[in-house]
Formats: sequence, structure tokens, C-alpha cells
Amino acid sequence: MARNKHPEETVNRIVEVSLRLFLEKGYEYTSIQDIIDGLGGLSKGAIYHHFRSKEDILEAVTEKLLGNSNRMLTKIRDCTDRNGKEKLKTLFRESLMRPGQEELFAVAPDIGKNPKLLFSILQDTVDVVVPIYVLPIIEEGIRDGSIETDYPAELAQLIILVANVWMNPMIFEDTPEVSRRKFLIFSQMMKGFGLDVIDEEILARLEELTKIYQKNK
Amino acid sequence: MARNKHPEETVNRIVEVSLRLFLEKGYEYTSIQDIIDGLGGLSKGAIYHHFRSKEDILEAVTEKLLGNSNRMLTKIRDCTDRNGKEKLKTLFRESLMRPGQEELFAVAPDIGKNPKLLFSILQDTVDVVVPIYVLPIIEEGIRDGSIETDYPAELAQLIILVANVWMNPMIFEDTPEVSRRKFLIFSQMMKGFGLDVIDEEILARLEELTKIYQKNK
Repeated sequence: MARNKHPEETVNRIVEVSLRLFLEKGYEYTSIQDIIDGLGGLSKGAIYHHFRSKEDILEAVTEKLLGNSNRMLTKIRDCTDRNGKEKLKTLFRESLMRPGQEELFAVAPDIGKNPKLLFSILQDTVDVVVPIYVLPIIEEGIRDGSIETDYPAELAQLIILVANVWMNPMIFEDTPEVSRRKFLIFSQMMKGFGLDVIDEEILARLEELTKIYQKNK
Repeated sequence: MARNKHPEETVNRIVEVSLRLFLEKGYEYTSIQDIIDGLGGLSKGAIYHHFRSKEDILEAVTEKLLGNSNRMLTKIRDCTDRNGKEKLKTLFRESLMRPGQEELFAVAPDIGKNPKLLFSILQDTVDVVVPIYVLPIIEEGIRDGSIETDYPAELAQLIILVANVWMNPMIFEDTPEVSRRKFLIFSQMMKGFGLDVIDEEILARLEELTKIYQKNK
């Protein structure tokens, strides 16, 4: 077999084809053989050279989709045309509104049945998203007077964990109706912290994404 | 080898001896051999007949300690001398105050490094503690006018997950100082829901338990 001179290209092709298949057939119903067929000519060995398992491929697919997320968070954190509280609102809005979220919700595996995946999401939230993106926004809000709290790090961690984990229909298997009620409780919690940063438009979008996720399960 | 006519007794002895050893030496530093020595005469085979691994024994030890927890929750839920909000306060107080909690915190493993254990705690909270104990208390509070919410099930799940998971120093590896700040944010969140049910005494106790846990790690 000829040696592959462009391993990155191969990885990219595997990820792209897999994403398309996960969207079309669903993750559970896509086999490694389907991916091989979709790649047209790549051997099983070539796939297993880069990925240990289908779960490994899913991780790469998810990372690709999450990469866009970090770029979005950086942009909001570093923009100069709004105060901390407005940035927090933009963050919640963009997290749900931006393009690509339909895809993420459509391919998303049942995280609530996968302890390892849930664990890695928790770790990413606590170790990366909160300290690198959300905390600086809250600290900016304290400086500019738009946010009031004595414990910015803990407030940041609490609201993001509740938003990313508790309100995540992929983890809790919520119906759109339960999603709606959780959102309204979350909204009340945020107001209790003086953070009236979520609105009806964001709620409608969350319900829409929950429906997409449920449909593709 | 003579057949064991009282398997339950054997299991109880293993659990009791293991609990004592986990307390004395710490879970990580207790070997199966230590447990065998502590049992004075039981063979390794007899232990492995009942438990597959040390982790399995830890689960039984934890269940024994948690059994007390369910009895306590039943008593609070079913008592007739206070309203729903007062019951909720009693629940938070007793969860931390009751005897045995020092032991639980001292033997507790590092849940934050054990996805399976974390997962089973999440499931127990969502499937048992919230619907069977906390939701009826909140619904009683709505009926007697002491608690106000349109979404009792979601409120119950949110506050108990935040209390049992986010404020759990065994999961998040919090120092007593971080525990204190999280508690104050939690307290603010509860007040936002009209639930001023936690006080300085409960806070002091949480800090004490966090110290016990950190010391025994």
C-alpha cells in the first residue's frame, strides 16, 4: 500500500464524510463500513490508522463543530462595542442562533447515556469555557457597572453549567415542553442575579433545536 | 470449604470492616488484603464471591450510608408539623447536619475523577431524590402558599442538582474557600426563587465537611 503523504487531508475527509453520514443516517445507524464506502476507496486499515473507533470519529466531528464555538466566544469576549451584561446576552443568543447549531443538534449522540462524553463536556465547560470566555465577560461587567456580584468565578460557573448541562436536551432527554419550562426557570434564576439577558427569541430557538434533536434521534 | 449459610451476614461484615478501614487508611490506601486481614479468616475467594472489586465494595459502603439518607428524606417529606418551605429548609439542614455525614465525607472517593460514579449520582438525584422526595415537598409548599412557582418539577430538579452536584466538594474538588463562595451564590439563587431556606449554620457545616473530605483524600 502506498504511504499516505497527507495524513491531515485524510483525517479531514473522514471527518467530513462521517459528519454527512451522521446527519443523513444518524450516528447509531452509521457503520464504519458506511464511512469506508462514503470515502470511496479508503481501506479499513487507513481509518483505524487515524481513529480507534466510531466513537473516536464522533469526537473529531464534535471538535470540528466546537471549534467554531470557540471562535464565536473569542469574538464576543473581545468586542468593544458593548458592556459586560450585553456581551453575556450576546453569548447566550449566539450560542443558540449561530449557523451550524442545527447540524450539531442533529448529529448529537445521546450524551445522557454516555458517561465519558458527558464527563468531557463537563470538563471542557469548567476548565475552558468558564475561565477563558465567560469569567472575563463577567469581570468586565463588574468594572463597567452592568453586572453586580462578589463572586464572579462561581457565578460564571453556575450559570454556564446550568445552561450547557441542565438545559442541554442531549443530556437530559427533554421534550420541547420540558425544555421550555426549564428555560423559564433558568430565566427566573438569571433575573435573580440581576441578569435579564435571555428573551423569547432565544427561547423559541431552543425549542426549535430540541425538536431537531428529538427528530434525528 | 464449608458452604456459607449466611451470605448476608458475610456481606455485612465485609461492608463494616471496609468502612472502618476506608475511614482509618483512606479508600485509595486500603487493599483487598487489608480487608481480608481485618475480617480475620475470610478467604480472598469469599470476598470475590460477593464483590467483583474494591470499587464494588465501596459502592456497598456508600449505599449503606445513603440508606440512612432516604429514611431521613421520607421523615421530612411526611412530617405534619411544618409547611413546604420549612420542610425544604429542614431538608438542606438535615442533609448536612445529620450524624454519619462526617463518615460519608471521610470515605468519599474522588467522584470528579470517576465518570461512572458521577453518573450514578446524577441518575439517583434525577430519578429518585427529586421526584420522590423534593417535588412532593415543593408541591405541598405551593398548596399551603409558602412556595411560589409555576414549574415545581423543574425548580426541584435545578436546586437539588446544584446542591448535590455543583456544591459537592467530592465532585468539584473545591477548597473550603471555594465551597463558601459557591454556597453564597447558591443562597442568592435560592432567594431569587423566594426560597430563603439556608443560613449561616448550614454554611459553617458545609465548610467543616469540606475540610474533613480534603483532609482524608
